[in-house]
Amino acid sequence: MLDPMFGSEVVDRIFSDSTRLQRMLDFEAALARAEAKVGVIPAAAVTAIAHKCDAALFDLGSLATAAIDAGNLAIPMVKQLTDLVAREDQDAARYVHWGATSQDAIDTGLILQLRDAIEAISAGLTRLCPLLEKLAADHRATPIVARTWLQQAVPTVFGLKVAGWLDAVTRHRLRLEELRARILVLQFGGAAGTLASLGEKGLDVAAALAKDLDLDLPAMPWHAHRDRIAEVASTLALLTGTFGKVARDLSLEMQTEVAEVFEPAGKNRGGSSTMPQKRNPVASAVILSAAARVPSLAATMLAAMSQEHERGLGGWQAEWETLPELVRLTAGALHRLVETIAGLEVDTDRMLRNLEVTHGLIFAEAVSMTLAKHVGKRAAHQIVEAAVRQAVSDKKHLREVLAANPEASRHLSSSDLKSLFEPANYAGMADQFINRAIAASQTRTTENR
Amino acid sequence: MLDPMFGSEVVDRIFSDSTRLQRMLDFEAALARAEAKVGVIPAAAVTAIAHKCDAALFDLGSLATAAIDAGNLAIPMVKQLTDLVAREDQDAARYVHWGATSQDAIDTGLILQLRDAIEAISAGLTRLCPLLEKLAADHRATPIVARTWLQQAVPTVFGLKVAGWLDAVTRHRLRLEELRARILVLQFGGAAGTLASLGEKGLDVAAALAKDLDLDLPAMPWHAHRDRIAEVASTLALLTGTFGKVARDLSLEMQTEVAEVFEPAGKNRGGSSTMPQKRNPVASAVILSAAARVPSLAATMLAAMSQEHERGLGGWQAEWETLPELVRLTAGALHRLVETIAGLEVDTDRMLRNLEVTHGLIFAEAVSMTLAKHVGKRAAHQIVEAAVRQAVSDKKHLREVLAANPEASRHLSSSDLKSLFEPANYAGMADQFINRAIAASQTRTTENR
Amino acid sequence: MLDPMFGSEVVDRIFSDSTRLQRMLDFEAALARAEAKVGVIPAAAVTAIAHKCDAALFDLGSLATAAIDAGNLAIPMVKQLTDLVAREDQDAARYVHWGATSQDAIDTGLILQLRDAIEAISAGLTRLCPLLEKLAADHRATPIVARTWLQQAVPTVFGLKVAGWLDAVTRHRLRLEELRARILVLQFGGAAGTLASLGEKGLDVAAALAKDLDLDLPAMPWHAHRDRIAEVASTLALLTGTFGKVARDLSLEMQTEVAEVFEPAGKNRGGSSTMPQKRNPVASAVILSAAARVPSLAATMLAAMSQEHERGLGGWQAEWETLPELVRLTAGALHRLVETIAGLEVDTDRMLRNLEVTHGLIFAEAVSMTLAKHVGKRAAHQIVEAAVRQAVSDKKHLREVLAANPEASRHLSSSDLKSLFEPANYAGMADQFINRAIAASQTRTTENR
Amino acid sequence: MLDPMFGSEVVDRIFSDSTRLQRMLDFEAALARAEAKVGVIPAAAVTAIAHKCDAALFDLGSLATAAIDAGNLAIPMVKQLTDLVAREDQDAARYVHWGATSQDAIDTGLILQLRDAIEAISAGLTRLCPLLEKLAADHRATPIVARTWLQQAVPTVFGLKVAGWLDAVTRHRLRLEELRARILVLQFGGAAGTLASLGEKGLDVAAALAKDLDLDLPAMPWHAHRDRIAEVASTLALLTGTFGKVARDLSLEMQTEVAEVFEPAGKNRGGSSTMPQKRNPVASAVILSAAARVPSLAATMLAAMSQEHERGLGGWQAEWETLPELVRLTAGALHRLVETIAGLEVDTDRMLRNLEVTHGLIFAEAVSMTLAKHVGKRAAHQIVEAAVRQAVSDKKHLREVLAANPEASRHLSSSDLKSLFEPANYAGMADQFINRAIAASQTRTTENR
Repeated sequence: MLDPMFGSEVVDRIFSDSTRLQRMLDFEAALARAEAKVGVIPAAAVTAIAHKCDAALFDLGSLATAAIDAGNLAIPMVKQLTDLVAREDQDAARYVHWGATSQDAIDTGLILQLRDAIEAISAGLTRLCPLLEKLAADHRATPIVARTWLQQAVPTVFGLKVAGWLDAVTRHRLRLEELRARILVLQFGGAAGTLASLGEKGLDVAAALAKDLDLDLPAMPWHAHRDRIAEVASTLALLTGTFGKVARDLSLEMQTEVAEVFEPAGKNRGGSSTMPQKRNPVASAVILSAAARVPSLAATMLAAMSQEHERGLGGWQAEWETLPELVRLTAGALHRLVETIAGLEVDTDRMLRNLEVTHGLIFAEAVSMTLAKHVGKRAAHQIVEAAVRQAVSDKKHLREVLAANPEASRHLSSSDLKSLFEPANYAGMADQFINRAIAASQTRTTENR
Repeated sequence: MLDPMFGSEVVDRIFSDSTRLQRMLDFEAALARAEAKVGVIPAAAVTAIAHKCDAALFDLGSLATAAIDAGNLAIPMVKQLTDLVAREDQDAARYVHWGATSQDAIDTGLILQLRDAIEAISAGLTRLCPLLEKLAADHRATPIVARTWLQQAVPTVFGLKVAGWLDAVTRHRLRLEELRARILVLQFGGAAGTLASLGEKGLDVAAALAKDLDLDLPAMPWHAHRDRIAEVASTLALLTGTFGKVARDLSLEMQTEVAEVFEPAGKNRGGSSTMPQKRNPVASAVILSAAARVPSLAATMLAAMSQEHERGLGGWQAEWETLPELVRLTAGALHRLVETIAGLEVDTDRMLRNLEVTHGLIFAEAVSMTLAKHVGKRAAHQIVEAAVRQAVSDKKHLREVLAANPEASRHLSSSDLKSLFEPANYAGMADQFINRAIAASQTRTTENR
Repeated sequence: MLDPMFGSEVVDRIFSDSTRLQRMLDFEAALARAEAKVGVIPAAAVTAIAHKCDAALFDLGSLATAAIDAGNLAIPMVKQLTDLVAREDQDAARYVHWGATSQDAIDTGLILQLRDAIEAISAGLTRLCPLLEKLAADHRATPIVARTWLQQAVPTVFGLKVAGWLDAVTRHRLRLEELRARILVLQFGGAAGTLASLGEKGLDVAAALAKDLDLDLPAMPWHAHRDRIAEVASTLALLTGTFGKVARDLSLEMQTEVAEVFEPAGKNRGGSSTMPQKRNPVASAVILSAAARVPSLAATMLAAMSQEHERGLGGWQAEWETLPELVRLTAGALHRLVETIAGLEVDTDRMLRNLEVTHGLIFAEAVSMTLAKHVGKRAAHQIVEAAVRQAVSDKKHLREVLAANPEASRHLSSSDLKSLFEPANYAGMADQFINRAIAASQTRTTENR
Repeated sequence: MLDPMFGSEVVDRIFSDSTRLQRMLDFEAALARAEAKVGVIPAAAVTAIAHKCDAALFDLGSLATAAIDAGNLAIPMVKQLTDLVAREDQDAARYVHWGATSQDAIDTGLILQLRDAIEAISAGLTRLCPLLEKLAADHRATPIVARTWLQQAVPTVFGLKVAGWLDAVTRHRLRLEELRARILVLQFGGAAGTLASLGEKGLDVAAALAKDLDLDLPAMPWHAHRDRIAEVASTLALLTGTFGKVARDLSLEMQTEVAEVFEPAGKNRGGSSTMPQKRNPVASAVILSAAARVPSLAATMLAAMSQEHERGLGGWQAEWETLPELVRLTAGALHRLVETIAGLEVDTDRMLRNLEVTHGLIFAEAVSMTLAKHVGKRAAHQIVEAAVRQAVSDKKHLREVLAANPEASRHLSSSDLKSLFEPANYAGMADQFINRAIAASQTRTTENR
C-alpha cells in the first residue's frame, strides 16, 4: 500500500509476510525440540526439522495461493515444511507439527509477533515520557488560556496541559504491563484442545514448549476464547485515543489564528513554498487518522469474540488482518508523536498574547469573586457585569473600565487590579499537579525496569 | 499480506499501488487536455504532459517515502511528473497540475477506481442472480424445515429460502445503480474550491475535464463533503451484510448434524484426509469474516465525515486505506459467493429426513388448527397437547399417537393425518413468492441493461 | 434518560413506548380488516378486534415484564389483545393475529414508525434548505479565508462554504426519497414466511393488508433479510455525518480566536454570566455528539444483518433499541441544526480581519503566479520567497514589502498590488457554484413535491 | 423503553435518572464537608447544603428541560440546589459547588455510579464461577464431539468446554480488579483543572473530598483525558464478548438437530404450546444481542477520546448515554448467563449419540495414527482412506468395515478397535486442564477476597 505514512518501520516489519511465516516456523521448531525433550519424538528428528524452519526457504506466493483453498496459512506451511524436511530425512518428516493443529502455530506465532510489537510500543512510550516530563517541567509557569467547548475560559499554564498528556501515558504504560502478563502465553491444544494425540505427555510437551519459547503456560488452550487477543486491540485503542487527544490539542494550537505550538519543521515537511503561512500539522493528521480508525478495528476484534464451539467460523478469520493493522496504526501514531514532542516548537509569547484576545474578559469571574468578599456575591456580580458590558461596547480592556469604575476601585486598588489581571496568578495547584504527574511517570519508569 | 483469500483478483488489482497512481495520472493528463481545449494552457504542452502520465515511469518507493513528509501521495507525484515533463519540455512542465490541488487528483483518481470496482461488483451480481434464480426455481417444491431462533419451526421449501437471498440481492443491484448515478462525478476545485486561479474559465475547464473522464460535473467541488464517498462504504456494507446472511445459512446447513447443503468440493478444499467427515465451509468463513469486518470499516468512513473547513485533518486521511479495504472485502466475499452458489450441492433427501427429527412435533400446530374447525380452538389445543406429551414420553411419532387417539381420529381420517404430516402441503404462497422474486430479479437485469 | 438534549420532540414521541405499541396494534387491526375483506375471517370479528387495538387499553408495565420471558413484545401483546377481545366477543378473539407471526407485527409496526420518522426528518430538511439557500446567497460575496489542515490557505467567500453544506443536504434529500420507496413495505409472512396457514388466500390478504396500511407489497416476506432496515440506519448516518461536518465548521469558527459566526444567543443558552467571553456552541456539541455516536450504531445494524435461517438469534434483537436511538439522534441533530442556521449570527467584519492575520502571506501564491507572467515562474518564486522572509522578520505586511521591492514593483503597479491583496478578487467560480447548488436544492424541493 | 429484557434490575437502577442525580448531589455534599474541614467554607454552611443534596427534592423534568439550553445537567442542578439551600440559609447558598466546575460533579457522580455497577458485575461473576466450576467438574468425563468450522472434528469432554468458559471469566475478574484500581478516583479540578479558585488549599480540599467519597486522589484532574472512562467500556466489552461466546455455544447446542443442552425451562419461557418442539434460547438471544451491540458502543467511547483542550466538544457528550447503555447491556447479559448456567439442562445421552452421527468417521484419524505404528504412515493412511470410502458408500460404521478388513484387523484386534472407537479415550489432558482452570478460578475468588 502506498501509504507508509500510517505505519512505523519496526512494527511494519514485525507484521511483514516473511516475519509472520518465521514466527509460525519458530513454533514448529520449538515444538520439535520440546517433543524430543519429553520423549514424544526421536531426538534425531529435531535438527532436520529445525533446520528447515527458516522462512527464507519457503515460497510465499505459493503458500498464499494454497491458503485460499485450505482456509488458512498454516495448512500449506506445514505441508511445505514437511516436504522440505522429507527431502533430507524421510523419517524426521513424520514428526513435523506432531500433535499440533494449525491454530496452535498461527496463534502462537501471533503471540510472538505481539511480544515484539508490544516491546516496540513500550520502548516508544519510554522515549516519550521523559520528553513530556521535560516539556511539562519547562513550562510549569508558562501562562496559556484554558479552553473549554473551544472557547477561552480562564488562564492556566502550558505545563499542566502537557502533564495531563503525560499522566494518561503513564496509565497506559501500566496497562501494557498488565496486558503483557496476561497475553504472553502459549497456544497449544491439538485438534480439540485436549492434546489427546500426545497421550499422557501432553502437558509435559506444553510446558517444555512454553519454556522454549519463553512464554507462560496458560491453564488450558484457548482456541475459541479470544479475550486475550481482543484485549490487545482494546488496550492499544486506549493508547491511540490518548495520542489522538494530544494531536487534537496540538493541531488546534497550530491553527493560524492561535499559533501557540508547532510541529517540528523540516524540508518538504508540511510546508508550502507557495503558501508560506502554512505549517501543515502532518504528524497530527496521521495520529488523528489512526485515532479515527483504531476504535472501529477494535470493535471488529471485540465483536469477533463470539466464536463457535472449539474453533469458530468467520470470527477467527476476521482477526487476521484486523489486529496487525490496528497494531501498525498504534505504533505509527506513537512514532509520529515521539518525533513531534521531541521537536515541538512552543511560542510562549503568542500564548501570552492569546490571553489578551478578550481584552480581559476571561478574568471577569475572578474579579467578581474577589469583589464579593467586600460587597457580597450579588453586588459584586452586578458591578462586574456592568463593567463587562461597558468594556465590550466601548472596546476597552476590562481592567481599564474597572479602574475607572468608582464602585470597583473603592475596593480594588490599582495593584489589586494588576494582580487580578495577571495570568500567572491563576496557576493554582498546577505546579503540584505537574510534580505529581512527573513523579508518577518516573515511578512507572522504575517499575517497568 | 499473506491473506489473499479475503480479496478478489480483479478488485485487488484496481486498488493496487500502481493502478492507484495511474488513476491520478489519468486525472493529470485529462486536466492538461481540458485546459488546452478551453485555452488555459498552450495546446503544445498537452502531449508532453500526457506522455509522462504513465505509472510505469514512476518510482513507487520514492513516492511513498516522500509522502510521509508531504502528507499525501499527490504532492510528490506532481513533483515527479513535473520533473519528468521538464526533462523533455521545460515550458510544458510549467502547466502540470495547473490550477488543481492535490485532493483534486486524489479524489478524482479514487472515483475512477471506484467506477471500475463498482463495475466489477455489478458484474458479479449479474452472474449471481441467474444462479440464484435457477436454484430457487429448481427447489420451489423441495421441502425443508424453517428454523427460527435456531429451532425447527414448521415446514417450508428450500426454493423460498433461496428466493429470499435473491430478493435482497435484487435490491442491492438497484442501490448500486442509484449510487453510481450519485458518485461518478469529478472532483475539481483548486486550493479553496473556487477554481480562482483559472480566472473566468474555471467552470469551462471543469466541464471539459469531466467530459474527458466521462464523469458527471457536480454542482460544485466537494473536498470536505464526503457523503458520496461514505455512501460507497455504507452501500457496499449492505451488500456484504446480505452475503454474510447467505453464508450464515449455508454454514449452518453444512453442519455435520444438519448436512443439507455443501459448498462445492475441490482438491485441497476445506477437506481433510485425516478427518474425512469434515467439509469445512471455507468460502462461508471468508464471507462471514468480510461481513464481520466491513460494518466497522463503514463506521470509520461515516465517522470521518466531520471534516474541518475546506479540507480536513485526520478524517480525510482515515479514508485512504479504509475504503479500498472495504471494497476489497466486499468484492472478495461476492467472488466466493458466486463460486459457492454455482457449485452448491443440495441434499434434498437429508432435508426431508431433517423434517422428521422431531417425530412429527413440527406439525402439531397445523393439526391443532385443523382440529379446531371441528371441536373449537381450546378443545383442539388440549387434545394435541396431550398427544404431544405422549409422543415425547413414549418416543413415538405424533402421527401414530394421534391415529390411536379416539378424539382425534374421530375428526381426522387416516388420509387427513397423512396429509397433515406431509411437508409438501406447507408451501403456502412459496411458489408465488418465488415467482415474484425471480420476476423482480429479471426486471432488474433488464433495467440495468 | 435525563438527556433530552440529544433528541427531538417529534421523533422521540414516534419511538415512545406507547406509540410503538400502537403501531403494532395498527397492524393487528388492519390485519383483521384485510382478512375479513378477503373472506379469511368473519366480517363480524373485525369491529371487536379493531376496537381493542388501542394502546391506551394496555398495561405497558406488564407487557414489558412478560416480554422478558417471551423474548419479544408482540407475544404478550397478542395475548393481552386476545384477552381484551375475548372479554367482549369470544368468537372474535379466535381471529386475533390470524395467520401472522410476532415478527410480522413488530416489523410492520416499525415500518409505520419509520414512515413517520422519515417524514419528520424530510420536513426538517425542507425547512433547512431555504435557510441555507438564503445564507449562501446573502454571503455570495462575503470574503472569508479558506482553511485546509486547520491552516489559513487562500481567500474564498462564506457563501460558498454554506453552498457546500446545502449541496450535501440536497443529496441527502434524494437519498431519503430513494430509501422511502424501498422501505415502506409490508412485513407479513407467518411463521415460516410462506403464509401457509392462510391457504390459498395468503397473497390476497397480504395485498389487502398492504393497501389498508398504505404500504407497498414486497415481492416476498423479508423476516431475516434486514437490508431495508439497515439501509435506514446507514442512510441516516450519512445525514448525521453532514450535520456533524456543519457543526464542526461552526464550532471552529466560533472559537474565541476566530469568532466569525455564532450560534443564536438565548437566555441560559451556552452563555455564562461569570465567563462573559464564552458563547458555548451548545447546539454544535449536541450535533457533534450525534455524529460521533451514529456511525457505531449504524455498524451494529449492518453487522446484525447475518441473521440465521428464517428468523435469527441475537441479530434481530440487536436492532430493537439501536435503530430508534439512531433515528432519534439524527432527528435531534437536525432539529438543532435548523434552529442554529435560522438564527446564525455572522460577523463579516471579523471574517475580513481574519484574512489579515498573516499580514498578507495568504496572498503570496497569487502574487507569485502573477509575477510569473512577467519574469517566469522560477524568478517570480524567488522574489516572492525573499519578500515573505523579509515580511516575517520585519513584521511587515507582505504588500508593503513588495511595494518597496524594486524587482516586484517594476512589474506590479501599486494598483496591481492593491488588487492582488484584495480578497474579493479570489472568489473565482464561487458565484456560479453557489447558483448551481441553490438551483439543485430548489429542483429537489420541487421534485419532492 | 419497552425492552427491559436487555438490562439487569440492579444496574438499571444505578443508572436511573434519580440515582444519577443523587450521585452528583453526593459529590456536592461531600465537597461542602471537605471544604469546611479544610477551612475553605464556613462549617455552618455544611449542614444546610448537605440536607438539600437529596434527589427527592428536585424536579427531574425541569432539570432535563434546562439542560437542553445549558448543555449539561450539572448547571441546572447546581442552580436548583443553590435555590433550595438559599430558601433556608442565604449565606450557605453562596458556598454551594464552591470552586468546582460542572464536569467535576458529572464525572465524580459517574465514577460513583460505576463503582456500584462494577460491584454488581463482580458479584455476578462471583456467582457465576462456582456454577461453572461445578459444571466443569461434573462433566469432566462426559464425552461430546469437538466442533471446528461448525463441523464435527474429534471427541472431547463437555467439562473441558465449560472449563474454557470459566477460564475466560477468571481472566475477566482480574481485569475488573485492575480496572477498579485505576478508575475509582476523584474528578476535581475547577474550571481549568488548576483549582485556582481555592488558592493554596486546592490539593487539601481534593484530598479531603476523595477521602470523604472513599475514592483515590489521582495525580491531577483528568477532564479531557478519558482513558479511564473508555477503559470501563473496553473492559466490559471483553466480558460481553465472552458471554456472547458462551451463548453462541449454548444456542448451537440447543439446535433441534443437536439438542445437547437446554436453557432452563419456565412457564412462558421460550416455549410455545403450538410449536411444542421449540425451546427458544431466549437468554442466549439477549446475550448475543448484547455481544452484538456492545463492541460498537465501546468504539464510540474509544473514538470520543480525542477531546479538545481542557474540555471537549461533542466527545464528552457522546459518552453520556453510551456508557450507561453499555454497562446495562453487560450487566443484563451476565444476569441472564448466571440464570442460564444455574439451570442448564445437559443431555449427556444425546451428546454420546451425536458422537455416532458420522458412523465412526470422526475416529478415522486416530485409527490411522495407531495403524501407522505397525505399517508406517503412508500405508496406514491408504488402508483407512479405503475403509472410509467403503463405510460411506455401504452406509456402514467405520468400525465394522475395519473389522472386516484383513489389513486392518491383522494389526488391530477387536478390543483394539473397540478402544479406538471409544470417545472416552480421547479426553487427553482434559482432566488436568479442567483442574487447572478450576484452581485458577478459586485462586481468583480468594484474591478478590
